[in-house]
Amino acid sequence: MSTTAIPRGLEGIIATDSSICWIDGDAGVLAYRGIDIHELAEHSTFEETTFLLWFGRLPNRSELASFSRSLAEARTISPRIIDLLRMYPTTAAPMDALRTAVSMLSLYDPDGDAVSHEANVRKAFRLTAQVAMIVAIFNRIRKGKPIVEADPSLSHAANFLWMLNGEKPSETAARTFDIALLLHADHEFNASTFAARVIAATLADIHAAVTGAIGALKGPLHGGANEATIKMLQAIDKAGADPVEYIRQMIAEKKKVPGYGHRVYRTEDPRATHLRRMSEALGESAGNMKWYDMSRKIESFIKKEKNLNANVDFYSASSYTLLGIETDLFTPIFAVSRVAGWTAHIIEQHDSNRLIRPRAEYTGPAYPSPYVPIGERA
Amino acid sequence: MSTTAIPRGLEGIIATDSSICWIDGDAGVLAYRGIDIHELAEHSTFEETTFLLWFGRLPNRSELASFSRSLAEARTISPRIIDLLRMYPTTAAPMDALRTAVSMLSLYDPDGDAVSHEANVRKAFRLTAQVAMIVAIFNRIRKGKPIVEADPSLSHAANFLWMLNGEKPSETAARTFDIALLLHADHEFNASTFAARVIAATLADIHAAVTGAIGALKGPLHGGANEATIKMLQAIDKAGADPVEYIRQMIAEKKKVPGYGHRVYRTEDPRATHLRRMSEALGESAGNMKWYDMSRKIESFIKKEKNLNANVDFYSASSYTLLGIETDLFTPIFAVSRVAGWTAHIIEQHDSNRLIRPRAEYTGPAYPSPYVPIGERA
Repeated sequence: MSTTAIPRGLEGIIATDSSICWIDGDAGVLAYRGIDIHELAEHSTFEETTFLLWFGRLPNRSELASFSRSLAEARTISPRIIDLLRMYPTTAAPMDALRTAVSMLSLYDPDGDAVSHEANVRKAFRLTAQVAMIVAIFNRIRKGKPIVEADPSLSHAANFLWMLNGEKPSETAARTFDIALLLHADHEFNASTFAARVIAATLADIHAAVTGAIGALKGPLHGGANEATIKMLQAIDKAGADPVEYIRQMIAEKKKVPGYGHRVYRTEDPRATHLRRMSEALGESAGNMKWYDMSRKIESFIKKEKNLNANVDFYSASSYTLLGIETDLFTPIFAVSRVAGWTAHIIEQHDSNRLIRPRAEYTGPAYPSPYVPIGERA
Repeated sequence: MSTTAIPRGLEGIIATDSSICWIDGDAGVLAYRGIDIHELAEHSTFEETTFLLWFGRLPNRSELASFSRSLAEARTISPRIIDLLRMYPTTAAPMDALRTAVSMLSLYDPDGDAVSHEANVRKAFRLTAQVAMIVAIFNRIRKGKPIVEADPSLSHAANFLWMLNGEKPSETAARTFDIALLLHADHEFNASTFAARVIAATLADIHAAVTGAIGALKGPLHGGANEATIKMLQAIDKAGADPVEYIRQMIAEKKKVPGYGHRVYRTEDPRATHLRRMSEALGESAGNMKWYDMSRKIESFIKKEKNLNANVDFYSASSYTLLGIETDLFTPIFAVSRVAGWTAHIIEQHDSNRLIRPRAEYTGPAYPSPYVPIGERA
């Protein structure tokens, strides 16, 4: 098999077709089902966007109402999952806690491991509702706070903040978080979504695939980047360092600056545009421009020095911090959003399935190598 | 991006390089680190083969002794995992039970989520030892039987059968199962291993990657095929049907016959050779040739009719049944073996990492599609 032209990591290689997400990395375009992310960020909600991702078109009023009701009704979770969350050490990494709980949800799903389109859609409602609940509930438990009951009158975004904080979020906070959720909801064959499709393509069920996706999202090269970004900003702040000098030093030491560069985008990540604006607005409303100002300085410097653009993670770091969300929940919150896209992709994969099974370029000992008897080995 | 030449499902596409496993699908060759699987099946053990997969060469006597001791010493599991297994409904699918428990192991691993080579190797011992334990322990619990303590004097294969059945296995059973484990231990970029590498390539930890792999293995197009095979054989037996007529009917109804065909092999799967022999020998020693004879008839017919070869799953079905293993443990047992290969691949991926992130061929609505205001939608 000739492999000279094949880059490692499948960069630029088509794995399969999909009608969900369009990215033009050169033009900086992201669109769900053909609709530009800027339009959605301005006019849509997480619920409407999730309908769009799952069903391929925007809902009318009654469809949206029914969709939102179904998602709210799915906010009931087996008491065994709560038992599990209470069993965890309070020091458990929230991503490990989430992955294990989502894996266990499969044991209680009324549709079992059915992979029909209809069963997948029903499970997608439950998974999307319950991933958010698990993140919020585990955070309450590990802090020794009482669990907050879901409020069916609230949107998905507002209910999450309510269950997380035990306070009804302001309209601004709820809307800001809603936009953050829809901006992160899908991104074509990013590593976690691709992992989900590889798993689903064996005709394993949606819980197996989402569990794998959560595993992939944990990695610092994927979902972990906004955590790394805020840790860097906090380190700069704590040291009282000049942000530009700090970054110059990182670059000199060949350290990767988190929140910069992207496998697909060669220009500004269109999501970064909104998160930058969000970070600024939240800073203004909190009277705390520290993180935003620091981020802007770093952004200009890296653009000038390395011609790299801020990606989606760079400004979500300061935005989430200003929303009062703890650092180690940033990646779980990414999952709260991305589960909408994962489930859309799993449904699409199962609807028209083909096993995803590439080959390796073999670089090991020549075949056949002898099986040397144990007494004759060095 | 031109994509006309790219087949769906990455068939024949190189994802990345690897020095672990060599498959020549045309010649029917499978080799670990260059050594032919036939040599290993004849002379090696699961422990020695796992050393080979992880470290790239065969161990000498003292290395093998030390390796086997380390693997046996890793047979201690957090009591919280036992609590989890007891919490499950006894009807839980064993693959879901296993996936959830392995995900939870991450919370108690002394190396946390470190991804260094050394931490990965230490975790690989624990994972390999404990995947086997979890499968055996959950089976005891769901049957209301007492848990059997691990016996450090036994090999990995024999200890598994001991913990599963509460009886010391015969030498023949232990050796047969040992060979079955080493035959299934790796298979290049099969879907579960590839899922593990996609997850690991975000620099997520080995538990995240193995959890995802278990999810992929659950699918009937991957690990589920030997379960489907034995269910088919049992249905033929129960109906008192002629195996050839039964299969002829399945083919006429365009049903896929489980245990036949393979994405990579165009000739006999070299593992099938050993499992056929194993099925025959176990049938003879049990005085029960029913499953073997039925399998042979089906094999000749499908070869003649469709020119398809039996794959690894076809004869593992009758072999495992003759070893007294229940049908819904076949896929978990595949995991007991394949975890050796998964961990080898994750270690290799982390040692020289590059994010695995392909692209999709976009087939959805044209960009830009308008965001139609909700009042104007159909």
